[in-house]
Amino acid sequence: MNIEELKKLAKLIRYYSLISTSKAGSGHPTSSFSATELMTGLMFGGIFRYDLEDPELANNDRLIFSKGHASPLFYSLYGAAGKISETELKTLRKFGSMLEGHPTPAFPYTEVATGSLGQGLSVGVGMALNAKYLDKLPYKTYVLLGDSEMAEGSQWESIQIAAHYKLNNLIGIIDVNRLGQTGETMYGHDLKAYESRISSFEWQTYTINGHSFEEILEAYKQAQNAKKPVMIIAKTLKGKGASFLEDKNGWHGKTLDKKLEEKLLDELGKVDKSITGKISAPENKQPRKMGIEKPQEPVYEPGQRVATRKAYGQSLVWMADEYPEVVALDAEVSNSTYSELLKKAKPERFFEMFIAEQNMVGTALGLARRGKIPFVSTFAAFLSRAYDQIRMSQYSGDFANIKFAGSHTGVSIGQDGPSQMALADIALFRALIGSTVLYPADAVATKRLVKAATDKKGIVYLRLTRKDTPVIYKDDEPFPLGGSKTLKESSNDEITIVAAGVTLYEALAAHKTLEEEGVSTRIIDLYSIKPIDEKTLLKAAQETREIITVEDHYKTGGLGEAVMRALADEKVPVHSLAVGKMPRSGTPDELMDYEEISRNAIVRLVKKITS
Amino acid sequence: MNIEELKKLAKLIRYYSLISTSKAGSGHPTSSFSATELMTGLMFGGIFRYDLEDPELANNDRLIFSKGHASPLFYSLYGAAGKISETELKTLRKFGSMLEGHPTPAFPYTEVATGSLGQGLSVGVGMALNAKYLDKLPYKTYVLLGDSEMAEGSQWESIQIAAHYKLNNLIGIIDVNRLGQTGETMYGHDLKAYESRISSFEWQTYTINGHSFEEILEAYKQAQNAKKPVMIIAKTLKGKGASFLEDKNGWHGKTLDKKLEEKLLDELGKVDKSITGKISAPENKQPRKMGIEKPQEPVYEPGQRVATRKAYGQSLVWMADEYPEVVALDAEVSNSTYSELLKKAKPERFFEMFIAEQNMVGTALGLARRGKIPFVSTFAAFLSRAYDQIRMSQYSGDFANIKFAGSHTGVSIGQDGPSQMALADIALFRALIGSTVLYPADAVATKRLVKAATDKKGIVYLRLTRKDTPVIYKDDEPFPLGGSKTLKESSNDEITIVAAGVTLYEALAAHKTLEEEGVSTRIIDLYSIKPIDEKTLLKAAQETREIITVEDHYKTGGLGEAVMRALADEKVPVHSLAVGKMPRSGTPDELMDYEEISRNAIVRLVKKITS
Repeated sequence: MNIEELKKLAKLIRYYSLISTSKAGSGHPTSSFSATELMTGLMFGGIFRYDLEDPELANNDRLIFSKGHASPLFYSLYGAAGKISETELKTLRKFGSMLEGHPTPAFPYTEVATGSLGQGLSVGVGMALNAKYLDKLPYKTYVLLGDSEMAEGSQWESIQIAAHYKLNNLIGIIDVNRLGQTGETMYGHDLKAYESRISSFEWQTYTINGHSFEEILEAYKQAQNAKKPVMIIAKTLKGKGASFLEDKNGWHGKTLDKKLEEKLLDELGKVDKSITGKISAPENKQPRKMGIEKPQEPVYEPGQRVATRKAYGQSLVWMADEYPEVVALDAEVSNSTYSELLKKAKPERFFEMFIAEQNMVGTALGLARRGKIPFVSTFAAFLSRAYDQIRMSQYSGDFANIKFAGSHTGVSIGQDGPSQMALADIALFRALIGSTVLYPADAVATKRLVKAATDKKGIVYLRLTRKDTPVIYKDDEPFPLGGSKTLKESSNDEITIVAAGVTLYEALAAHKTLEEEGVSTRIIDLYSIKPIDEKTLLKAAQETREIITVEDHYKTGGLGEAVMRALADEKVPVHSLAVGKMPRSGTPDELMDYEEISRNAIVRLVKKITS
Repeated sequence: MNIEELKKLAKLIRYYSLISTSKAGSGHPTSSFSATELMTGLMFGGIFRYDLEDPELANNDRLIFSKGHASPLFYSLYGAAGKISETELKTLRKFGSMLEGHPTPAFPYTEVATGSLGQGLSVGVGMALNAKYLDKLPYKTYVLLGDSEMAEGSQWESIQIAAHYKLNNLIGIIDVNRLGQTGETMYGHDLKAYESRISSFEWQTYTINGHSFEEILEAYKQAQNAKKPVMIIAKTLKGKGASFLEDKNGWHGKTLDKKLEEKLLDELGKVDKSITGKISAPENKQPRKMGIEKPQEPVYEPGQRVATRKAYGQSLVWMADEYPEVVALDAEVSNSTYSELLKKAKPERFFEMFIAEQNMVGTALGLARRGKIPFVSTFAAFLSRAYDQIRMSQYSGDFANIKFAGSHTGVSIGQDGPSQMALADIALFRALIGSTVLYPADAVATKRLVKAATDKKGIVYLRLTRKDTPVIYKDDEPFPLGGSKTLKESSNDEITIVAAGVTLYEALAAHKTLEEEGVSTRIIDLYSIKPIDEKTLLKAAQETREIITVEDHYKTGGLGEAVMRALADEKVPVHSLAVGKMPRSGTPDELMDYEEISRNAIVRLVKKITS
């Protein structure tokens, strides 16, 4: 569309942003106004290629509103494109509306939920990686960024990785409107500050007037043939279009009352509601098909000593042949997590994300949103570095089809000390809506659960162990999600011991000692912590006097509290053995004894209860 | 000491790094070798000013090993200074040794626990801020950084903020040894890549040969009079000093076996153990004293409607007068968290940290380590962005005397939607060793708990509410840590309802409705979630049939599971009402009804149980 038409559309879009937020009584009109030309030019200026009838089309360009609080603008763009009515726009932020306060997939044109700042660019990295290295499609990925959010370190992770992977199909647009929530940003309207910093990372930069369609369209055109990732740094005014709000502090996240709304409507003048924004059609190319080889399932012998992290790597290679969508990301510890096995077997399916976990998780979400099944691995302790990204990904629902593999869990990692020990990871992943939390004890359980994780849509967490553990299950043993394994059971069990992973071996050893002393205990391997096998736990609660849980994890939010919750309606006492003292360096056995999660601690507690 | 002596010391330090790791059988000798000259030159070349007899002296220069895995080098420096014997060095990584795998305060010269990469620079920012703006002392803060960890976004947050605050007393040293754990870093030995990026953020940079004492000392000398923060970018060889390991991949985190150890001992040649490193004396200046004004305690009237976040801001101003150590940091939302009240009252005690939560938390740790009491505020959801930093801070024990204030908790924030709602924050803070978790319902409780938090050493989390709530407590009501308030109680209570914060009002309303229908309920305000008031909960468990918990938080790891744990030994059913459905936009009341944590949901559940 020509510039005159774009100006008409921009006026219509400002009008929609205004009336929807005024009606809602909350939201961010001024942050929407500043980026109106930038987004109008992109979508309707012949740049963006997208089939509005088929949002999931593989050839569509992608647009992510990293500054999710500009959702009124986001929705208004689709209003101008004729996909949402004015009446619908007026449901903004209402209960039940698809137009939530910050974009979520409730609205069909949302790529991923945003609203926690500094996350959109990493999602864009994932989509651009997919286009360039996996699907090999010409689509481009655009990310609208706020200037305030450039303070977030995650942005600079993405900037580094995008340059490393030469993602010349990724285009960021910074809406430099100078003002954050409370005042001026670090760099205000100093576009050169952004330009020098971002170009030092080997990005192509363009500085423009973000309200000039001529400059906007020229920058987008140049960006089409870039040799590097592109950042368009646009000087804008917050509240642009409302002379009484423009560039004024104190208007972040504030809507206009009736009087001011009318004042602005006056200022906007006649709005042409008959115009409809046209978006260019995407190309129609086929995504590259992955070559498939015959999957080789790893096989384990009873008694064989294999760390579950190693079985994870072996299973990942198996899955990659079975599922062409499977890819792996790792934060520079692939020789510890054994994702290096996939890197060696299929280098084109492995992406080194370096020590930048936040971007890694965002990238995984971008890959997942483009149909891949990313396995994300690092030391589980360092997944906490990306917890805000993990938290946000849950709000993309099933689109967040990400599998997290955390190695080096618990004090049983030993000498490296607490900084490397994951001790709250079960709590972190259990907390997510719709998540699955799995904790295999041996290599057989691991391979079955890696397969189950691949098949299960959504966020799945696999808790892995550093040290070797003996194979205790038959190679064909099934491990359904939500199940458990009762390994020791008799009609005269007094106490039930619920364990998982590394503590299962402690429970089994305690069982043996206690049996020799005439005390019968039931042993349950709770490999599926979420969903949890309530049925088996209830049976144990009814058939034995008391329950003991044992976990190499902090007391809070882990296996113990999961069992307490499952049995909260029952009148059975639950005793939890878990990490409670300040962890430190030592051998695994010393530390498990010290934290009272060892076989000795279990035996002591059982004797105390039964004596 | 002169260069010949420094060379002798470097040899001795390499020797110590070698024999301690060989004895331990794990650890990072090659990462220690690469930085040996950099650290030897700093400590013993007349640069570093420190009183080894008084590590806590306010005038001491500060040294943080951000690359905490180089702990063998860290400990060996103090060996060379005569503060640890060779015998002690050989206890590295053993259970009970003060020489843990990664530095912790068990070793008296450790500033803060490190080992999760990319965190030391932000701690340094806190210490440098303290020197420049609070204590006004001339000490300098040095941070040893690995090249791999420069991929972490947190580094670039610190780099931005340090330049913003013109911290020319902060000196970073990047040990560019080219190799990460699995292979080459993003930039390898390209020092210019680091230089152009870091200098673009307005830092002074020096690129040097990191094994040349001449170049090292010259850079440190120049850094003393810098006008900006300084980064020394040093080209080094991983494994330097061991010809057969130098610059070789595959040696990260690997120790030398007996044969290789002997080979290296041969290559090192005669080690002079008689030499002792001398460190220059620090200055002896007095920290600036804060002017104290008469503290003005805020006063609240029963029935007055005040959001607890606002009462937090008011109490913060009160505390700042009572405690000269109190300072506040906020991530660009101080008008939402009301920390702006302190910013207005005492601008010199408030530090704007922009939208960069990871650096904010590290900076707080640095300030706390220098004797301040930092209050860190933002939307509670965004504290999750810094969870790895929060996690690590617990391992600095009481040194992590940080108060976290999280506003906008739960679905009751309303229209902004899930991205802005903290729903796992209680779980995150409960998980930390030694933490305190507080959740005031009204303004009176808030001010008492802000005071209690200030007095309590260590990590304290205050959960704050966005919306106004009526004052229900008398202005002089005490709120001891570990306590609770039983607001409704009678001898014929059938059910106990345990609530906190915003759900307390729902519980009180439900109580009234149920009372009118002849059902008597006990209402407990569990304002102290950790430590928890077991005594009152046990009493309720014994005196009423069942317990209901109600919380505006996810089901996992929160108030409900805290109560389940407290009552796990009891034969009383605990029913938990908590957020379990995908949250969305809506009014607070709509959302609390939708998630079944409202007065209506409580009444329904009580009737179900009692019918």
